[in-house]
Amino acid sequence: MEKSKVGLVGLGTVGSGVARILLDHGDRTARQAGRVLWLEKAAVRDPAKPRGCELPEGVLTGQIDDVVNDPEIEVVAELMGGVDRAREVVLALLAAGKDVVTANKALLAAHGPELFDAAREAGRTIAFEAAVAGGVPIIANLSQCLSANQVLSLTGILNGTCNFILEKMHAEGVPYSEVIAEAQRLGYAEADPAMDVDGTDTAQKLAILAHLAFGARPDWAAIPRSGIDTLDLADVRMAQQLGYTIKLLGVAELTPVSQGVGGLQLSVGPTLVRSGSPLADVPGPMNAVKVTADAVGELFYEGPGAGQMPTASAVVADLIDTAVGRTRLTFQTLKLWSKESERTPVADPSDSVARFYLRVEAADEPGVLAQIAGALAAEGVSIASFQQHASDTATVPLVLMTHATTEGAAERACQKIAALKPVTSQPVRLRVLG
Amino acid sequence: MEKSKVGLVGLGTVGSGVARILLDHGDRTARQAGRVLWLEKAAVRDPAKPRGCELPEGVLTGQIDDVVNDPEIEVVAELMGGVDRAREVVLALLAAGKDVVTANKALLAAHGPELFDAAREAGRTIAFEAAVAGGVPIIANLSQCLSANQVLSLTGILNGTCNFILEKMHAEGVPYSEVIAEAQRLGYAEADPAMDVDGTDTAQKLAILAHLAFGARPDWAAIPRSGIDTLDLADVRMAQQLGYTIKLLGVAELTPVSQGVGGLQLSVGPTLVRSGSPLADVPGPMNAVKVTADAVGELFYEGPGAGQMPTASAVVADLIDTAVGRTRLTFQTLKLWSKESERTPVADPSDSVARFYLRVEAADEPGVLAQIAGALAAEGVSIASFQQHASDTATVPLVLMTHATTEGAAERACQKIAALKPVTSQPVRLRVLG
Repeated sequence: MEKSKVGLVGLGTVGSGVARILLDHGDRTARQAGRVLWLEKAAVRDPAKPRGCELPEGVLTGQIDDVVNDPEIEVVAELMGGVDRAREVVLALLAAGKDVVTANKALLAAHGPELFDAAREAGRTIAFEAAVAGGVPIIANLSQCLSANQVLSLTGILNGTCNFILEKMHAEGVPYSEVIAEAQRLGYAEADPAMDVDGTDTAQKLAILAHLAFGARPDWAAIPRSGIDTLDLADVRMAQQLGYTIKLLGVAELTPVSQGVGGLQLSVGPTLVRSGSPLADVPGPMNAVKVTADAVGELFYEGPGAGQMPTASAVVADLIDTAVGRTRLTFQTLKLWSKESERTPVADPSDSVARFYLRVEAADEPGVLAQIAGALAAEGVSIASFQQHASDTATVPLVLMTHATTEGAAERACQKIAALKPVTSQPVRLRVLG
Repeated sequence: MEKSKVGLVGLGTVGSGVARILLDHGDRTARQAGRVLWLEKAAVRDPAKPRGCELPEGVLTGQIDDVVNDPEIEVVAELMGGVDRAREVVLALLAAGKDVVTANKALLAAHGPELFDAAREAGRTIAFEAAVAGGVPIIANLSQCLSANQVLSLTGILNGTCNFILEKMHAEGVPYSEVIAEAQRLGYAEADPAMDVDGTDTAQKLAILAHLAFGARPDWAAIPRSGIDTLDLADVRMAQQLGYTIKLLGVAELTPVSQGVGGLQLSVGPTLVRSGSPLADVPGPMNAVKVTADAVGELFYEGPGAGQMPTASAVVADLIDTAVGRTRLTFQTLKLWSKESERTPVADPSDSVARFYLRVEAADEPGVLAQIAGALAAEGVSIASFQQHASDTATVPLVLMTHATTEGAAERACQKIAALKPVTSQPVRLRVLG
């Protein structure tokens, strides 16, 4: 049987998982690839460090160049993480004539065009199933299975750490600060969880999905985003009372383009999702993506968004697709991150239409509600429901749900509300799904 | 741009949907395929009949041979349905050097080996995404996205008609006979719904999935199956009281093989699923598949299982994959329905382990429960819970949930129970998921 020699760069959690599948299940990968996937070299920073897998003699190396310069290695999985050094390594691998598989969404979000151009110039391919939603094969589904469709919208729970933390906040009624500490102890959150919890990770993944599903070219850093790190437990409780569950969602929605207005609306933030709906029920560290498309209608995918073996499952699927040759065909056809002009413009976020949840803390005095309602009316924001709660502090929380309005109008109304004399702090404003 | 000429055989609901996508969205399919998918000919039985789509001059023909003998047509979608004539047509198309796409699961279930051998001999391919679960791309996901995994189990809601009927029975408390009549009026059920409602359709789809996911070679007709046509509303109500929802499931589960016992357990039947779980919540005419695999863990797919455009979405995705060349690579590698020996033997259904729901109708007299409990104990079946309900008829329903036991033991116990003097009819026995 033919043999494809595989290299790994990075042998941390995911790298060890990939090595384990390649070493322990050679029969399986050979059957699926039609050739043996042979783990030839694995480059790590410190070869003396103990590993989660045992490698055959001669596989481990401390020199990335041993992988780059081995002419027999055909495909390499970049699993070192980080951006700057990973970029250099991927460029070197492509220049050396190797196909690349990566799980590195930050790298793609930052340097997609440069890397894909380099791959095209070198006649090689880049596959990246593991970069978004871990074990959920959303990249293959968008680039291949849904090819007869125009995707209309895409709603994703793309960060398992956040979903785990939110579930705890809902189920146990403990604030963010306590849950994040526990998540770090359990290894569900990084020592520095900023990129996960502030929405950066979700925005980077959403940018990749938007590129694939809509042919848009969003800059992830320009996607309006908020995280769960500023989410107040009071709003979780209030949402629950109203029949909602708060999830950190990445949303991409196509709106009609007319006279320069419209296009792809993108947003990332804690969002009220109707309790009992499939997205609201996505548990713990899982990820999920709901896709609405013109021919197929609505598809829902759910699965593990991170973790050693789920991510390794996606990386090895890419190694197999690359060895079989499917990756090359898809890569040539789809022209991702190419110089082709965008197919869908990214819309102005302030035109984005949604319903909103607002919580306003105000002094308990006559006329407050009239002033707030007036500020909303001045921006054309219509109130769908309203609740005022008793409070044992000097201020009372006023909770409003709006009818559909634009992001811009909601934001302007909130600024006006914040400026009202009885209002003691910036209103909390969260999106409501659907 | 290069052009791939496409033929259709059959222009009913799905065929018209495929034609609409090809004709109305040529830019989209060209972008995804890297070449124009050109609808060259569509063969129908009666060209005079009004159609759901307008075709360009010269496309419609009453002669299948016009498609078979057109040397420029590269790929043909067989959408005529039925088995015998469809088999002849597919064989003729392959012999004429055309790749084939089909949505015909009955054809594959009956003649898979013959057709795939013919394709291999002719150097052509067969793609069949639309044959199982309509718009849910479960075929591509099993044959490609999960290739790094050993699938451990697969649980599917594979028949939208049954799921629609069951939802109505649960939500409205109306018996099967009434709902099926309404479903026929609404077009959700065929005039002769037997194949859908008796579990045949689900068994045929499960056999295809078992072949793909486990390398098993089950004969669909040998899969133990029961349908919803014999489901009593009393059991729907009882299940609901116990916290369950009844779904028609196809289940494939790998059990360890030891001393000739074990292998792939397959079953089709109305099954109690814990209410509130994702499978229990699958609505109306949707389909869903839950896959558990050793690397990725659990993946859940949900989407439209039938209907014109969802099915057309799957057919056109196959046409694109075939035109791009991905189908050829997958087809060559996976060796489906080939003479290769099965990778997983199909297990003896009587060894299958499950929990069971039993309803026994018995005369309301002393000692009945002791006799029933004795019959279960004699077969080693242990009772997990028991309920006796008041009744205004001469008999009372006794409802039991068993602990995990084998299908064989449960069936033998039921035979013994049926033979008890106070028991007035064959016990109802349904599986409980998980």
